[in-house]
Amino acid sequence: MAESPITPRNQDFAGWYQDIVLQGDMAEPAEIVKGCMVIKANGYAVWELLQRELDDRFKATGHQNYYFPLLIPQSFLHKEAEHVEGFSPELAVVTLAGGKQLEEPYVLRPTSETIIGHFFAKWIKSWRDLPVLVNQWANIIRWELRTRMFLRTTEFLWQEGHTAHSNHEEAREEVLRMLGVYADVAENVMAMPVIKGLKTQSEKFAGALQSYSIEAMMQNGFALQAGTSHDLGQNFGKAFDVQFQNSEGQLDYVWQTSWGVSTRLIGGLIMSHSDDKGLVLPPKLAPVKAVMVPIYRKDDEKAKVLEAAHRIANDVGAKVDDREGQTPGAKFFHWERRGVPVVLELGPRDLAAGNVVVKRRDTGTKEPMPQAELAAKLPALLGEMQQAMYDGAKQRLKANTVLANSIGEVESILKEVTAEKGGGKFVMAHVKDDPQCDQRMKDFKATIRCIPLVDEYDGGGKCIVTGEQVDRRVVIAKAY
Amino acid sequence: MAESPITPRNQDFAGWYQDIVLQGDMAEPAEIVKGCMVIKANGYAVWELLQRELDDRFKATGHQNYYFPLLIPQSFLHKEAEHVEGFSPELAVVTLAGGKQLEEPYVLRPTSETIIGHFFAKWIKSWRDLPVLVNQWANIIRWELRTRMFLRTTEFLWQEGHTAHSNHEEAREEVLRMLGVYADVAENVMAMPVIKGLKTQSEKFAGALQSYSIEAMMQNGFALQAGTSHDLGQNFGKAFDVQFQNSEGQLDYVWQTSWGVSTRLIGGLIMSHSDDKGLVLPPKLAPVKAVMVPIYRKDDEKAKVLEAAHRIANDVGAKVDDREGQTPGAKFFHWERRGVPVVLELGPRDLAAGNVVVKRRDTGTKEPMPQAELAAKLPALLGEMQQAMYDGAKQRLKANTVLANSIGEVESILKEVTAEKGGGKFVMAHVKDDPQCDQRMKDFKATIRCIPLVDEYDGGGKCIVTGEQVDRRVVIAKAY
Repeated sequence: MAESPITPRNQDFAGWYQDIVLQGDMAEPAEIVKGCMVIKANGYAVWELLQRELDDRFKATGHQNYYFPLLIPQSFLHKEAEHVEGFSPELAVVTLAGGKQLEEPYVLRPTSETIIGHFFAKWIKSWRDLPVLVNQWANIIRWELRTRMFLRTTEFLWQEGHTAHSNHEEAREEVLRMLGVYADVAENVMAMPVIKGLKTQSEKFAGALQSYSIEAMMQNGFALQAGTSHDLGQNFGKAFDVQFQNSEGQLDYVWQTSWGVSTRLIGGLIMSHSDDKGLVLPPKLAPVKAVMVPIYRKDDEKAKVLEAAHRIANDVGAKVDDREGQTPGAKFFHWERRGVPVVLELGPRDLAAGNVVVKRRDTGTKEPMPQAELAAKLPALLGEMQQAMYDGAKQRLKANTVLANSIGEVESILKEVTAEKGGGKFVMAHVKDDPQCDQRMKDFKATIRCIPLVDEYDGGGKCIVTGEQVDRRVVIAKAY
Repeated sequence: MAESPITPRNQDFAGWYQDIVLQGDMAEPAEIVKGCMVIKANGYAVWELLQRELDDRFKATGHQNYYFPLLIPQSFLHKEAEHVEGFSPELAVVTLAGGKQLEEPYVLRPTSETIIGHFFAKWIKSWRDLPVLVNQWANIIRWELRTRMFLRTTEFLWQEGHTAHSNHEEAREEVLRMLGVYADVAENVMAMPVIKGLKTQSEKFAGALQSYSIEAMMQNGFALQAGTSHDLGQNFGKAFDVQFQNSEGQLDYVWQTSWGVSTRLIGGLIMSHSDDKGLVLPPKLAPVKAVMVPIYRKDDEKAKVLEAAHRIANDVGAKVDDREGQTPGAKFFHWERRGVPVVLELGPRDLAAGNVVVKRRDTGTKEPMPQAELAAKLPALLGEMQQAMYDGAKQRLKANTVLANSIGEVESILKEVTAEKGGGKFVMAHVKDDPQCDQRMKDFKATIRCIPLVDEYDGGGKCIVTGEQVDRRVVIAKAY
């Protein structure tokens, strides 16, 4: 694809985002399939790195990967009343297969609690069979009205954990453990600080007792729900008759959890770190950590520079961009847009001085470094960049988090904010977990993002909507 | 799941296969979704190892992973006449989504040549854009009438490579390169010898010029097509208008290839190596290479044995089965059924002698080994087992490959053979690549599996059906 200019963030944030995704070789819209995208080479490579980080942590916490069918009998959705109500508007339905009308249509999985509940009922008989700790990597279909690449697409890729336990306490520990895993990956891999919290009852997963999320702040101050972990209680256990004999010999329903993150994380990654020049990737999620661009004008320079470029790059595990017919400038531009953390320049003068020029993608700074020190210093530099990106995002989160003590104050802070123009804030205010409070925020197109697990503010206070006492401030923001 | 007896192979091969899959924790039928299965923990872990081996080789040969939509506009299938004819009977169709009837239905991908062709047309303009080397890991839906876990299921997991080239020669090189990658993984990772060959025109992929496959022999002498690589010529290029300007400035259609292997490989793996006691896995595909089972009767033995078991297992990277309430016998049985290559036994007497007892899953042999030597010898033992399993399968393939010089001879060799009773052969005979010859084999439910790339026999001869001269013998067999 030809490279075209990138819309500046402050001019049109949504346009900027789309440009970054396209020019960074991350994805492109699949206009012929409603709301779908093609994930392209750089985007999929980032997803693979993210999958590895997540999957290693799932396995380390005792989970095993399974694969369940994409097609779910439509009747399964109806077994849990809240669940079907939540997902019905978004279902895609297979009515015809093998040339025949199906007696019972299948829905394409919008999430797999129902079909997994069916199998849990077959597998679990006794407390000795518990806990069951299952994860699945899969594609998901939800018929969304408004879509945006990575952030909300009709089809997306995700993982969904599903676990069954013999008691509520253990299930709740699991819910919080996996929320912690998500926060760890967001902060320490994606360099994206998050707030862990409880969703309000209005915002919880359809069929859960309680849902928890991690919420991140994008560069326009909008919130992104980046991962969720649900306490399903015994709701699906009862709907799918997942009964077990407990250690006292009595029959009981299992306590279940589910938790998931998706390719949406890549949207969050982009909107956390990228700039007006293109994609910026934290080193831990960069498919290519460093690229060497050799610079020469005359033919007698070329052989020497190329030899040294390959030798040095080989020592430090960098890729050499030795494409013919491309200027060094075009190469810098190419890798900058793709978010490669470090670009190494090597020309005849650098060669003579025994140096290589090291350019950081995050800050744009360039400095010469002795070739002999590069192998030792590059990993440290990448580590430093990873930390600097986290610190920068954390600083932005802090700077754009504000307190409000009345609904009027919240409204005046948020009412002019749009995704395109930016200026969003996380507004911390005392609000009760009550549907009428969630509803009130909709007047200015904001939502209660979560009730933070840790209160970093001033404890209890009176709800700014109902006047009732609540024990801490919640996060109110406009969100994707 | 409770463990039950395994049907012996010589009694009912199909029943044996089903038992191995169930008892080995590989998969179970999803009876509520027609022809689908749940891939269970051990099965999915094997698939992950296989994916890693394949994916590393795809990347080493220059391919990048992408992800294309599951849903394909129905009209796309109709753009290539042979393709739609081949796949129409197997399509599942989404007609309803988001609560509304769709104007144009979507089919669930039965393979992705069409939708990828659409994007190739957008991406490829010039010879400078070529080759395009794409791979995708995805789920596939084909509405099959007769299904069997892993071997043929309505939904399966696979990878599909799709490439575009500026000329036929380069495309053909790619087709054979990827066939070689598949043969390498089959033989050197799965320990499953294969014959590389060309499919007849009757058996080729719907829409290809030519298809190549690797064919393996199962323990009942049946053939399994384990991977295919297709020379698509310019058929999809023309159907999707994928034109590029060549280096002489003229417009031409791209030359394409596609190639795939699927979870079917796991069926082949099982039917190549497993025995009447359960699953047997080649060490390279064993999620757990070695398990240590501590043996003790008295409490004062327990602490010492467990301490040593953990210490030794830790040194050699083995898993310790220290479950309480399970006898050592039950544990041996458990791991045997799951195909763990090496089980280590450690009891008080072994402890006193400084030994550990090493049991091989493939041969069932047990021998004591000094604890101090285990770390050094275990990797070599696993390598030896990997080789022995390949050699055994190769020997079986040779022993069950026979020559035939008339159609009557082929028929008499194959006519009584069934998948359940076994006794199948690879019959090598001179047969022309002509639909009437393929048809003739159907009289006794056999097929021409392939025309081998390498002639290991006696060169040319007269076709046993038409009498015409052909240049080598083909493989005729009953097949899955």
